Amino acid sequence: MSLLSIDHVSKAFGSHNVLSDISLTFEEGKIYGLLGRNGAGKSTLLNIITDRIFANSGEVHMDSENVADNDSKLGMMYLMSEVDLYNDGDKLTKIMKDTELLYGGFDHELAESLATKFGLDLNQKFGKLSTGYNSIFKLIVALSVPAKFILLDEPVLGLDANHRELFYSELIQTFSDRPRTFIISTHLIEEVANIVSDVVMIDMGHVLLDQSVESILTKNHSVVGPSEEVDQYTNGLNVIGSEQMSNLKTNYVFGNLNDDRPIPDTVQVGSFDLQKLFIFLTNIQGNGGSY
Amino acid sequence: MSLLSIDHVSKAFGSHNVLSDISLTFEEGKIYGLLGRNGAGKSTLLNIITDRIFANSGEVHMDSENVADNDSKLGMMYLMSEVDLYNDGDKLTKIMKDTELLYGGFDHELAESLATKFGLDLNQKFGKLSTGYNSIFKLIVALSVPAKFILLDEPVLGLDANHRELFYSELIQTFSDRPRTFIISTHLIEEVANIVSDVVMIDMGHVLLDQSVESILTKNHSVVGPSEEVDQYTNGLNVIGSEQMSNLKTNYVFGNLNDDRPIPDTVQVGSFDLQKLFIFLTNIQGNGGSY
Repeated sequence: MSLLSIDHVSKAFGSHNVLSDISLTFEEGKIYGLLGRNGAGKSTLLNIITDRIFANSGEVHMDSENVADNDSKLGMMYLMSEVDLYNDGDKLTKIMKDTELLYGGFDHELAESLATKFGLDLNQKFGKLSTGYNSIFKLIVALSVPAKFILLDEPVLGLDANHRELFYSELIQTFSDRPRTFIISTHLIEEVANIVSDVVMIDMGHVLLDQSVESILTKNHSVVGPSEEVDQYTNGLNVIGSEQMSNLKTNYVFGNLNDDRPIPDTVQVGSFDLQKLFIFLTNIQGNGGSY
Repeated sequence: MSLLSIDHVSKAFGSHNVLSDISLTFEEGKIYGLLGRNGAGKSTLLNIITDRIFANSGEVHMDSENVADNDSKLGMMYLMSEVDLYNDGDKLTKIMKDTELLYGGFDHELAESLATKFGLDLNQKFGKLSTGYNSIFKLIVALSVPAKFILLDEPVLGLDANHRELFYSELIQTFSDRPRTFIISTHLIEEVANIVSDVVMIDMGHVLLDQSVESILTKNHSVVGPSEEVDQYTNGLNVIGSEQMSNLKTNYVFGNLNDDRPIPDTVQVGSFDLQKLFIFLTNIQGNGGSY
């Protein structure tokens, strides 16, 4: 099992610190959600991991080897990002063959089956693709390379609901057929909540949270009822957000409830979702940078 | 109350029919979701309504007056789209003043309050805005003009979850303070499902659905159970989609259930959401065009 570790990575653009001493480990065979506000440093981190830009300090290791300038390790990673690496004049079939040469393998069967499902003609030129199909083609390539670590930066931006759903189900299918590691950066948090096994939240260049979804969701508690009772019951707990609707107050708790304290009859305890957790946690921390 | 009506509008680009004989009515004081797949013709329709591009046939009327070249009627509409109409060198404050001259009014108090909430400095130049803040500024202008019909084309594209939630809640607030008509085209259907009162679905240049959300949701039924029982119970009903998970089958019905037929004990009837309805209906109709 391969391990990808980010060790004390920092990066500044001019006087702006984008990443401050980030340390993280990505294990093989998991699907990670890399979540952060606009400007939080997600894309910078993905580009540093894949050696496209340099960190000011810190290193990225795969199985204890530094990946910088390390072609064999870099060949085990694939980053799909908004930046196009291909020539507009190249046919999609040619790009797939070139990628095969670079990565020493390419699942043509999967690529062709995905192209059919998404309604993409592979005999056209890259530069002729619309925004949506540009993303779709890059996604197809990302799923078809033999790399162990697949990094997807905003993979569904601009895709309609049908194509997003198709992508999520194909991702689960290919992951189950050939387990590898996916690191998915996205703003559509609720849509990936059922797909990712682990979540890394980045805020203001720091790691805010690095946990399994399962463990996160057991800590999300909504406490609803009359203001006074709700505040009394959640007093001392980790309340990360609040909402008031006429007489009903909801306090959102991230962490353990106080099991020694009885829940008043007027108060209801439920759960809340990953996107809401993200919004509360990053609002507390403040805006992670400029757009 | 003003009424905006689209009467038999058709539009082709070259040999490609984008809109085929579209007729629709938008009433004042409602929030419409304009839903369609990529390439379905949504942006074309919004541009025709606001006289930015010409229809090949058909007309757009506001209160029985043709809006084409009709400055007083066009001044009652505002379209926020991906296309930037402003000069990169202009300060945001200047753009707001220019908009006020054009529209005969501008809610500066609201604009400034929104800018503070979104963390946008209005003393900078338009061309300096990042993608996210470019959208946010255009949204702020759209909410602050005195127009009666506000058309928003993919308003939250690229916004992070926090800013999307802030936008939705500010939209509801301004709508309640000053009811007018919003027509929102978006791919994030589930996120707007609680905000819009009415839905217009466009597919392959045709109107696929034009109903209130309330009425739509009463027609969405999921029927889950053993395949045979489920198929038997839904036989003759309007089944728009199906899912199979090992022995459990779900048939999705859009329309009335057969109340004369008893529901078998092994079968559970529930509901499903707007985004799922959209995916099923547009999958049946086929892809509405090229990206």
